[in-house]
This record gives sequence, structure tokens and C-alpha cells, in this order.
Amino acid sequence: MLLHHATWPEVETYLKRCKGIVIPIGSTEQHGPNGLVGTDAICPEVIATEAGAEAGFLVGPTFNVGIAQHHLGFPGSMTLRPSTMIAVINDWTESLLRHGFKRIYFFNGHGGNITTISAAFAEFYAQWSLDAEPCPARLMQRNWWELPGVMDTCRTLFPVGEGSHATASEVSVTQYALPHAIKSVAMSPKIAPSGSFTDAADYRARFPDGRIGSDPSQATPEKGAQIVAVAKQALIADVAEFFEIKPAAAAAQ
Amino acid sequence: MLLHHATWPEVETYLKRCKGIVIPIGSTEQHGPNGLVGTDAICPEVIATEAGAEAGFLVGPTFNVGIAQHHLGFPGSMTLRPSTMIAVINDWTESLLRHGFKRIYFFNGHGGNITTISAAFAEFYAQWSLDAEPCPARLMQRNWWELPGVMDTCRTLFPVGEGSHATASEVSVTQYALPHAIKSVAMSPKIAPSGSFTDAADYRARFPDGRIGSDPSQATPEKGAQIVAVAKQALIADVAEFFEIKPAAAAAQ
Amino acid sequence: MLLHHATWPEVETYLKRCKGIVIPIGSTEQHGPNGLVGTDAICPEVIATEAGAEAGFLVGPTFNVGIAQHHLGFPGSMTLRPSTMIAVINDWTESLLRHGFKRIYFFNGHGGNITTISAAFAEFYAQWSLDAEPCPARLMQRNWWELPGVMDTCRTLFPVGEGSHATASEVSVTQYALPHAIKSVAMSPKIAPSGSFTDAADYRARFPDGRIGSDPSQATPEKGAQIVAVAKQALIADVAEFFEIKPAAAAAQ
Amino acid sequence: MLLHHATWPEVETYLKRCKGIVIPIGSTEQHGPNGLVGTDAICPEVIATEAGAEAGFLVGPTFNVGIAQHHLGFPGSMTLRPSTMIAVINDWTESLLRHGFKRIYFFNGHGGNITTISAAFAEFYAQWSLDAEPCPARLMQRNWWELPGVMDTCRTLFPVGEGSHATASEVSVTQYALPHAIKSVAMSPKIAPSGSFTDAADYRARFPDGRIGSDPSQATPEKGAQIVAVAKQALIADVAEFFEIKPAAAAAQ
Amino acid sequence: MLLHHATWPEVETYLKRCKGIVIPIGSTEQHGPNGLVGTDAICPEVIATEAGAEAGFLVGPTFNVGIAQHHLGFPGSMTLRPSTMIAVINDWTESLLRHGFKRIYFFNGHGGNITTISAAFAEFYAQWSLDAEPCPARLMQRNWWELPGVMDTCRTLFPVGEGSHATASEVSVTQYALPHAIKSVAMSPKIAPSGSFTDAADYRARFPDGRIGSDPSQATPEKGAQIVAVAKQALIADVAEFFEIKPAAAAAQ
Amino acid sequence: MLLHHATWPEVETYLKRCKGIVIPIGSTEQHGPNGLVGTDAICPEVIATEAGAEAGFLVGPTFNVGIAQHHLGFPGSMTLRPSTMIAVINDWTESLLRHGFKRIYFFNGHGGNITTISAAFAEFYAQWSLDAEPCPARLMQRNWWELPGVMDTCRTLFPVGEGSHATASEVSVTQYALPHAIKSVAMSPKIAPSGSFTDAADYRARFPDGRIGSDPSQATPEKGAQIVAVAKQALIADVAEFFEIKPAAAAAQ
Ligand code: NI
Ligand code: NI
Ligand code: NI
Ligand code: NI
Ligand code: NI
Ligand code: NI
Repeated sequence: MLLHHATWPEVETYLKRCKGIVIPIGSTEQHGPNGLVGTDAICPEVIATEAGAEAGFLVGPTFNVGIAQHHLGFPGSMTLRPSTMIAVINDWTESLLRHGFKRIYFFNGHGGNITTISAAFAEFYAQWSLDAEPCPARLMQRNWWELPGVMDTCRTLFPVGEGSHATASEVSVTQYALPHAIKSVAMSPKIAPSGSFTDAADYRARFPDGRIGSDPSQATPEKGAQIVAVAKQALIADVAEFFEIKPAAAAAQ
Repeated sequence: MLLHHATWPEVETYLKRCKGIVIPIGSTEQHGPNGLVGTDAICPEVIATEAGAEAGFLVGPTFNVGIAQHHLGFPGSMTLRPSTMIAVINDWTESLLRHGFKRIYFFNGHGGNITTISAAFAEFYAQWSLDAEPCPARLMQRNWWELPGVMDTCRTLFPVGEGSHATASEVSVTQYALPHAIKSVAMSPKIAPSGSFTDAADYRARFPDGRIGSDPSQATPEKGAQIVAVAKQALIADVAEFFEIKPAAAAAQ
Repeated sequence: MLLHHATWPEVETYLKRCKGIVIPIGSTEQHGPNGLVGTDAICPEVIATEAGAEAGFLVGPTFNVGIAQHHLGFPGSMTLRPSTMIAVINDWTESLLRHGFKRIYFFNGHGGNITTISAAFAEFYAQWSLDAEPCPARLMQRNWWELPGVMDTCRTLFPVGEGSHATASEVSVTQYALPHAIKSVAMSPKIAPSGSFTDAADYRARFPDGRIGSDPSQATPEKGAQIVAVAKQALIADVAEFFEIKPAAAAAQ
Repeated sequence: MLLHHATWPEVETYLKRCKGIVIPIGSTEQHGPNGLVGTDAICPEVIATEAGAEAGFLVGPTFNVGIAQHHLGFPGSMTLRPSTMIAVINDWTESLLRHGFKRIYFFNGHGGNITTISAAFAEFYAQWSLDAEPCPARLMQRNWWELPGVMDTCRTLFPVGEGSHATASEVSVTQYALPHAIKSVAMSPKIAPSGSFTDAADYRARFPDGRIGSDPSQATPEKGAQIVAVAKQALIADVAEFFEIKPAAAAAQ
Repeated sequence: MLLHHATWPEVETYLKRCKGIVIPIGSTEQHGPNGLVGTDAICPEVIATEAGAEAGFLVGPTFNVGIAQHHLGFPGSMTLRPSTMIAVINDWTESLLRHGFKRIYFFNGHGGNITTISAAFAEFYAQWSLDAEPCPARLMQRNWWELPGVMDTCRTLFPVGEGSHATASEVSVTQYALPHAIKSVAMSPKIAPSGSFTDAADYRARFPDGRIGSDPSQATPEKGAQIVAVAKQALIADVAEFFEIKPAAAAAQ
Repeated sequence: MLLHHATWPEVETYLKRCKGIVIPIGSTEQHGPNGLVGTDAICPEVIATEAGAEAGFLVGPTFNVGIAQHHLGFPGSMTLRPSTMIAVINDWTESLLRHGFKRIYFFNGHGGNITTISAAFAEFYAQWSLDAEPCPARLMQRNWWELPGVMDTCRTLFPVGEGSHATASEVSVTQYALPHAIKSVAMSPKIAPSGSFTDAADYRARFPDGRIGSDPSQATPEKGAQIVAVAKQALIADVAEFFEIKPAAAAAQ
């Protein structure tokens, strides 16, 4: 169930049986010559939507602009400052707690978000810790590509040129999700260079077409479908474990 | 063209012919017994998407959680604090300026956002004004229901019970956009009470099922289609006027 | 009664009979060739002071620098950033709540403040809404020129050239309030151009002497007296309605 | 010349001969049984206004709510948080720099403001220092009671019971400034206790009627006139020295 | 060379030959029954100080309170909010850039800091990326236990009960650094439980004496000396690589 | 007892007999040709450490980077913005209150910190004052040179050329604390010029080698030992008075 497609009485009913929600969280940033600017938001959104529909959990709005300062050398990339993102995550989380949500699962599609999401969690918990009150909710984040089985699938599908940005896998997932938006673009070199980076100028100088270590020309919607199928089941299992409030854990809080 | 469905080279090409972008901006909040929590995001998103496809302008990611503190008495509603929203709009806007965008059109679906968006614009311009440098970009916001012809259409379709929150028209638009998410719910009284409000407790006490002045049981997807058709053409015209950079105006800036 | 001219025991006594206070709120910005930089603060201050003296309500300190980034192209204009103003309004409001004030009426003299004041109210209410506690106070803002009867009076006095900034009416009110500060200045064209604006550079380019649509050379202190007389009575009535805590409303909160 | 009573062309003309401005800065807080809540704003305002009129320097709007958290136990007191006040002083100062002001003299009426004003100056200078650019302006603050000759006058007028809050002198100054607002109130003990304090609860417990060490029943408007006369001349001299931009100093900057 | 033990002319001279600095960064938090509250600051400080002395690089002040909200259930633990820490790291970094430092190496002793340090780096780079200017400096962080060879040494010394908080290794390092502060404390169970945690209440409920998975009763100053010796050499090598500004990299920036 | 050298059970035990803690607070800034960059942190740290060891009170981590924007013209100086420092002091203080500390004594070594520390205290108290709750803790700051007897000692040791920055006394204290870091540097003129300053550019222009009014070539570790001995005893007495919670004061709070 998508929160945006539900009514408030439906949410009220849902909360009687489950206190958990999944928030897809991505980025708006360049993904190389044939990858979509929305890739990192689209991937967790499509996986979470299918999993939520199958397993009956609630999926909140997609957090669609994240930490992408290093991609600003490429048109269309957008970023939040980390301090802004911390404030936003805090407001979203406080809103959900207000309604009694106790498990908030940020389902992440962008490596650049990970540390800021984690910092946001510490900011949120800090208020409770400083007030010497147990926080009634637990927050977690999971990257879609780290769900059990997903990386194995990707490696099998793309033994060469998976890469670390604008990967063959994530481009495949978006091609599955949005077949009308498949791009056919020539890329050279076939496999992009690898390495690290700092700011936007540094990134663009090192990775001229935006890719890092990848050959996303291998992407196909069929491979995307395979990845989504694996990720969906893994997400359902992961969420089920996180949402269940075990007696001991509840006591600990 | 949706930014999320484009590649960065496509955005680069777009910027050679047009410096404008439309950002749908909504809210995540209760919309009464049969209105979707995502209504205020879905309405501008669907209108902008159709208009952008027809007219060839770029549509950015939907700003999907806005100012909805007064709806927090109803499960599923989420809010930003205005100070947070100002920071986010500033980060989005700075990102777009970085790429050379000079016209940013926030296409709004939520009355509660209007004043904070306006404050955010002043915050953004203030930096330029204090630095005594002309700002290279212009920002504007437009509510979808205020586009020429839209209110007339709504009044014709719903002469009674249009209301001001969870309106018959906006529910119709979401039914058009998401026919699989149409809800059939009994409401009483037929037309909800009207009035003003302050915080969430006050709102819920005055408007027990969330509606203000409306009878959204009249909504149909067909009526939604009519509204969207009118709004789409009006948006295309409004955007065309805003995006065009007239020589005199450019000189003034 | 002016708060600044009262002692704390007098305020304590006042609070036993009334929980309301009026805060004049204005701006420090250019008002054309013959309008005072303090016009937008002076107008609500003089009206509120006279009304408070007659009706016995408390008038707080004047909030004298507001949102005027667009006027910074003219010497003497000062601005707060909207985020700063939100913080200040929050501190003022929290201070007043501490003493038991339950009705805070911001009496505004500057169009550029309206949206930021509104955003500040949402920021203030949000804390209560997120905490799921009813806010014990209600905030409102009113522009002096929107009080019943005031615009009619202005239009009657100035059928041509009232304008929208540095208006004939507001200049008249300041001439009534400060007869020793009446300026005699030639203006050309007689009626200033009209239009919209963005930042300070844009404003100054469009409106070279600072006026928008007005001919304030028509201003006289006598006309100002007429406007103040009408506004004073309307303010007394408006405040009386707002300050009265009706049983039903109290229950709703 | 008061900024609020001037037009922008008058300010423009002023800036050709002088780059300095005086900002009265006070507080809105209890001042004991017969002292006005606005005392700390009224005192610097009246002295600065008279001095500015005599010496021809510009006086800006009065900063009328300062740091008074410790007075919040008494009705009518209002406070900014120091972080808010720093932001406001920064915005005011940036606005004035925009117009070419190079000497900004904060003329202070409240001991509780001193350290926050100083912190605000460091915040303002820090941006320039971090950017390795010389700041084009100099900021200073002066308490009115520390001007040469003022304390001597106060001690002569009130050899006993001058005190440190709600002093006989400051109450006299307000009686001179606002003879219609003179209060006749019995106080006991004649001289209030002395000591230090932390927060509002602590202050009220130690100083039940708000005074510290003072006997303001001695205040008279005539004594206030004497104090203002001394302070006015001292302010004129102090400002003259500060505003003059000596060649060497200018080079050093 | 320690910055705190140097004079400014010495720093000036240093900058002629090297643009790099190492900042030890730790935490003030409980480290179990026999671990020092300062453990996470002491470890990187002692390693960096010895390495800096041997290799001649500059070591800045120790950042000694970090993100430890989860330890607040134990007396003596102190935390920054992540948003505060981001602001501090930004101010430190801006200060160093002012002097021409181009390589800032945060040498970290606390796992809980990692993500916030990373977010702070993104916050810092974002300003440059949004301004479309290449950042003249590079920032990196390294955890002392992740330097080549260190973990191997720890595992060899403590094949059982190394743990993940209040580890045998870090306690050993502090015993080496501060032999007068070695504590002899009985612990039970011998090896503490393992697991994850959220806020302070959750942490204390799961890990009653503060340790996670460790048996720090095995710690000795001699083992600490071995660890420091390995870490020191690895740090020297790591810093040497980071500080060297290669022509290509410089051009890329 | 140093907090960093204690375990949490030791802190727990300490809190049963004493609710007070001393926080050395300094700066990282140039101190002239022979003064250490860490002087202002080292001085209070060494005095507090010796006093705490003798008298048995707890000494927290040293706050080692303060307000030094005016020193940024000299390599190695680092600053916080005052708004950042207020946030940090608030986080430190909230952390300590969490554990039951009721007396927090900031022992300061840098004149530039004084006003911001004071503003931070007001920020902290303001939350309690606005919430109408008595703050359970008291904060104070003391400069080490203002302890009874210290200035007399300094004047006796250095009748000429003590100065106000990079003083003969503070350099002596650091020579006592760090005899291996004594610098032998020629200075000219023997006594540095005196005066005030604004930002970093202004400071460097007025005081080319960083000193103000001092001749620190007179410094010796022996004189430093004398100063520390006097300051230590004075600190013990001052802390004892502050930490004792007298019945009346407790009731007042
Ligand atoms: Ni990606
Ligand atoms: Ni709506
Ligand atoms: Ni006006
Ligand atoms: Ni006073
Ligand atoms: Ni550790
Ligand atoms: Ni010093």
C-alpha cells in the first residue's frame, strides 16, 4: 500500500495491525550517458512498491533529492546540503511518530546518502537520549543492492562492467520500471574509469561522462526484472523482521 | 520531459534551447474519507507531466511533503517545518542555477504551502540583494486551481460542495490519475463544515473527517479528466510566458 | 496601553481581564521620494496606539525591520532574511505565551511581510502539532489597509494614483502621525509605473524612484487623519472579536 | 536625523557626507514596580534622538527586544534567544553595509545585551576573516551609562539606591522622556536586594519585585533631564570620534 | 609537530614545505568498566603525536567530543548533535583553508563519528560544488584501527574478546599512553554481549556495563605499545600518500 | 580527576558526592613570536588539572578551539563562529545535565571567548525560562587571570610588558607546562603596540607579530610555576564555593 494512494482512515486501520513504514530514498543526479537522472529514486521506489503490494506493508513518499554535490558538474543533478537533509528526515520522522509509527525503514538507492541518513538518525535519537527518555521508535536504512541475494544476481548478470556508479544493474532496473524511457547511447570507453572523488569539479575531471567503473550499455529491462524479483523478496523478508516488535526488544526500549 | 526520466546529456541539450523548469510541489496529508493522502502532490504532478510532454518543457522531481502541520491530527499526514522547507527550496534552487536554469516555476497543489514558498523565494533573493548583485534567475509559483479557466470548470462541474479542502475537484483529478485507487466511502454530513483553523488539535476538532466545506462524493475520474485537460492547456500557456526571457526584462536583471 | 509604557504589575493586572495583545509589525524600507523609510512601521503603530488607548487593549513593541530585500537598491532599506524573521516571531510569541497571553494579533503594515508572518505561524504551531498537544494560543495577522472600510476610504480620498507601494494613503497616515516630517518633493512621472519584481536589482530597474503605481504627492495629514480614524474603529472591532475567547472555540482547542 | 523619518533620497545625500549610523538597542523587560517595561529601549532612543538632531548624525530603528530570559518570571518581559539576536544583528548590519555604511554604532540600554552584541560582531567579522578579505565596516557598542560623565552624574543625583536593575537613573530618564507615563508606586524594601542570578525562576526568587539594589522611588523627570543632557553631549563626542575615518585606520583595513 | 606546541612563525615555515595537517578526532564516552571515558580521543592522539614527531607532519588540536548520544545512559558520556558537529568541522576546515592548508586528514578514534564526519565533508564540498568552483582542499578521514596491519596485530594479540566497543585493543592503547590511569576492575560476563542499538536507553538495556562483545580485562600497556608502533608506521605512510599533491590531481582540482 | 582518565563507574561514584565539573576552555590562535598556538587552552588545562588532582574535583575535556576570527591573519589560528560555539556549549551542557551535574564551571583562558560563553549561557537558560521551569543547573565562567591573587602575581613578576595578548604571564605558564616547547625568538619592538581591533585584516595590520602590548621574552618556566601555584589555590577555593549547593540557593531554584 502506498501512503500517497491511501486515505487517512485506511492508514488508521493499517496502524492497528502494523506500526511500520518503508520510505524509499534516492537522489536526483546524473547516471552517465544512458542512465536516468532519477535512477536512485526509481530503483528503491519500484522495488518497495512491488514488495509493499505483495506483502501488505505501507510505503511512504519517495525522498527524491539527496546528497549529490559531487554530481553537480553534470546538468540536471540536484543536491541537498547534509544539514538540510538531516532537518528534513527529522521532520518526516517526527510526523510519523506522531501517528504511532514505531518502525521506519529508509530503503535507500544512493550510496552518497548513507552517511547523512545515519547522521540524521543520530540527530533524531540524540534528543531522546539527552532527555533521558527511551525513543518509542526505531529507524533503519538499507541499500537495495545490499539485500541478500541482490549482489549475487547482479554479478551473475554482469560479470564484467557492473561498476559503482551508473551501474549496469541500476540502469537495468530503471529500464524494467520505465521501458518507454530506455536510451540507446554510445559510450566510450566501454568500461568507465574507477576511483574516488571530492567535489563536483574533481568528479567531472576524473569521470568525464559520469560513469564510474561501469558499462551500462549491457543493461536490459529483462535483467532489471530479474534483479527486482530477487530484491522484492529479500525486502519483504527484511521488512518483516524489522517490523516485528519482539517482546524483549520492546522491553529494552 | 521529466527530469527523472532524462539523462544528463539530454538535460544539457535542453538547456541550449530553454532555461526553464517546472517543479510540481505538493503535500502529504489527509484529504478526507475518500481523498488520497498524496492528492496535493498528485494533482500538480499529473497536470505538469501531461503539459510538459505536450509542450516540451522540463518537469523536475515532485516536492512531495510540504507544510501540513494542521493535518497532523489525521494518520498519514506529514509536515516539514517552514524553516526546513525554506532550506530545501534554497538547495533545490541553487542546484538548478548551477546548471544555468533561469526560470523556475513551482507548480503548487497545496494552499498551505503558498506562504512558505513565497518566504523561500525572499530568502533566496535576499542573498543576491544583500550582495548587491542581480539574481540571474526568476522564481514563481502558481497554484493549479488558479490557472485561467480551471476554477470556472470546477464550479461548473460542482456547483455545490466544491469546498476548500478535500475538494470535489482535486479528488476527481486523482481519480483520473489513479483510477485503481478510487475509494467508495460514505460521508456525513454530505457537505463538510467550513471555517478556519490553527494547529492540528484545532483542525481535527472543527473538521472531524478532515474535509472543509466539500462534498467529494461527487468526484468522478471523467470530471477529473475535464479539469486536467483545461489545466494542462492553461499551464502550457502560463509556462510559455514565464520561460520566455524578454530582452527588456533580461536587461533589468 | 503600550507595553513599553507599562510596568510589570500593570501587565499582570491586565492579564486578569484580557489575554490578548496587538503587535504592530512593519518594515524599514524606501517609500519613494516623499515617503518615510519608517512608513510601514509608523502606520500600524499609530493606528494601534490610538485604538489601544481608546479600547484599553495592550499594544506590544513595534516589530520594525521586516522582509524588504527587494528594496535594498535604495539607501536606508533594511531587511531580515525570512528564516531570521521566523525565529524572531517565534521568540516573541514564546515569550508572550509564557505570561499567559492566548491571543496575539500581528497588525501589519507591509505587504512583503505577509507570507513570512504566515510561515512563522505555521512554524510555531508545528511544534504543538508534532507534539500532539493543543496550542494554548491563537495567532493572527491583519494588514491595516484591509480592515473594513479602510480601502473604501482610501479610494474615495485618492480615486487616482493610490498605487501599491509608497501609496498616497500610507504617506498621508505618516504625515498625520509626524507632521514635522512632511516632505515636499517633486516627482516624475506623476503616477509611477506598476508591475511585479524579484530581487533588489530588478526592483530598482523597474521602479527608479521606488514608487509603484502611486502618486503620493496627493498626500496630506488631514487625509491621513481620516484614514486613521476609520482604521482605528475597525481595528477596535476586529481585536474585540479576536480577543474574546468563545466557549466553543476554547473547547475546540 | 531618524532613519524612519527620512526618505531614501535624504539617506543617499547623508551618505555622501557621513558613513556612520547609530542604532539604539534595548530590551522589553520588567523594571520593577515603577519602571517601564520599555525602559532599556526608551533610554538609548531618547538620548540618541536628541543627540542625532543636534549633531546631524543618522539614528536607525530601535532594536527593542533583546536578551531578557532572566526577566521572564515577570509579565510583559520578552526575549530573543542569543542565537536569534546574532542572526538579526547580522541581517541589519549586512543591510547597512549594502548602502555603504562603514561605521555602525550600537547604542545600548541593557546590560543583558552586551555579550550577545559582542558575539554578533564576532560572527559578522568572522565571515570576512575566514574569507581573508578586510571588512569594509567597523562595529561598536556603547552602553549609555558608560559614556563619560554619565555615571558621575547618576551618583551625584542618587548617592544611595542607584542600584543595578530598575535603577533610579534609568527610571528618571524614562520619566523625562514620557512624563505622561510616570507611575507612583509604593515599594518595599526601600532598597532592593543585590546579587546575581541565572534563569527566570532564580531571578524572581531572589528579586521578588524585579529591582536589584535600587530605590527608583527617587526618580524624577528633572533628574532624568539632567542625565540626558550629559549623555547627549557625551554621545555626540563619542560618535564623532567613531565616525571619523582616519587615513591610517582606513589603510589598516 | 603539534600545532598547539608551535608558534605561528613555525606554522608559516611549515606551510612552505607541506600543506597537510592531521586532526585527531575522538569522543568522550563510556568505555566499559576499565576503559577510560577519553579512550577514543586518546588513541588517535597518541598515535598521531608519535607519528607526527617522527615524520615531521603537523598535528592539530584533538576534536574531543563527538557523536555519542547512544552512550548517554552512562555517566560522563558527552555528545554533540550531528548538525552541531557538521558546523564545527566546517569552521575548523574553513580556518585551515584560510592559511593555505590543502590536505586535512581527520584521524578518527570513534566508530560513531564516521558518518557525521562524512556528512560534514559533503557539507563543506557542497558550497564549492554549488558555486561551480573547484575546492582547493581535499579532506579525508581514517579510523586508526583500519590502517594497514593494525587489525591483524589486534587479532593476534586478542584472538578472543577483542569486541567492538571498549575493545581490548583500545584499552591497551590507553594503558600504554597513560600508565598511571590503568584500572583494575572485575567484569562479568568475561565477554560482553554483542548486537546493535539505537538510542541511549536501548544501549544501556542491551549492554549493561557498556562493553560490546569485548573482554578488555586482557588489556596491557605492553600490548598497547605494540599496537601503537604498528599504527604509527602505517599512519606515516598513509599521510605521506595523502599529503603529496601530484601534478595530475592538482590539475583535476 | 580528569574525566578523560576516568571510567564511567568512577564518574558515577563521583556524582554521589559532588555534582560539579570544571571545563577548561581555550582557543587555538597565534600568541606572538614565542607563544604557543595552544596557549589559551594549555593555561586553564594545566591549572585545572593540578587543582582537580589536589582538591578531588572532576575536570572535563578541554574546549580547545574558540572565538579567534581576529587572529586568522596568522597561520595556525582556528576559530569557531559564535553561533557554532553556542551550539557546542549547549550540547556539552545538556550532556552533563543528563547525568545529574548541577554546577558547570567553564575555566577560561581566552578573552575572546568571554562574551560568546556568556551568550551561550543565556541561550541555555532561555529554554528553561521560556518553559517556565527552574533550570536544575548553574553555569559559570571564570578567566584564570582573574582569580584572586593571580594578577597581583603577574604584575609583580612582570612590572613592565605584561601586555594583553601573548602576555609574559601566559607564555610563562606554557613554558612551565611544556618545558620542551620553549622557544627562543628575537622580538622587536621589545614591547608590542597596544590598541583595539576588529577583523583579522585589521588585527594583523595593527599588530604585525601578533603581540599586543607585551614583552613575552621575559617569560620563564619558573615564573610560570609561581603563577600556576597561585592560580591553583585560588581555583580550588573558587570551585569549592561554586560547587557547594547552599540550602537557600537550592530552594530559590
Ligand atoms: Ni545510482
Ligand atoms: Ni488538497
Ligand atoms: Ni508601505
Ligand atoms: Ni534597564
Ligand atoms: Ni572506542
Ligand atoms: Ni592568550
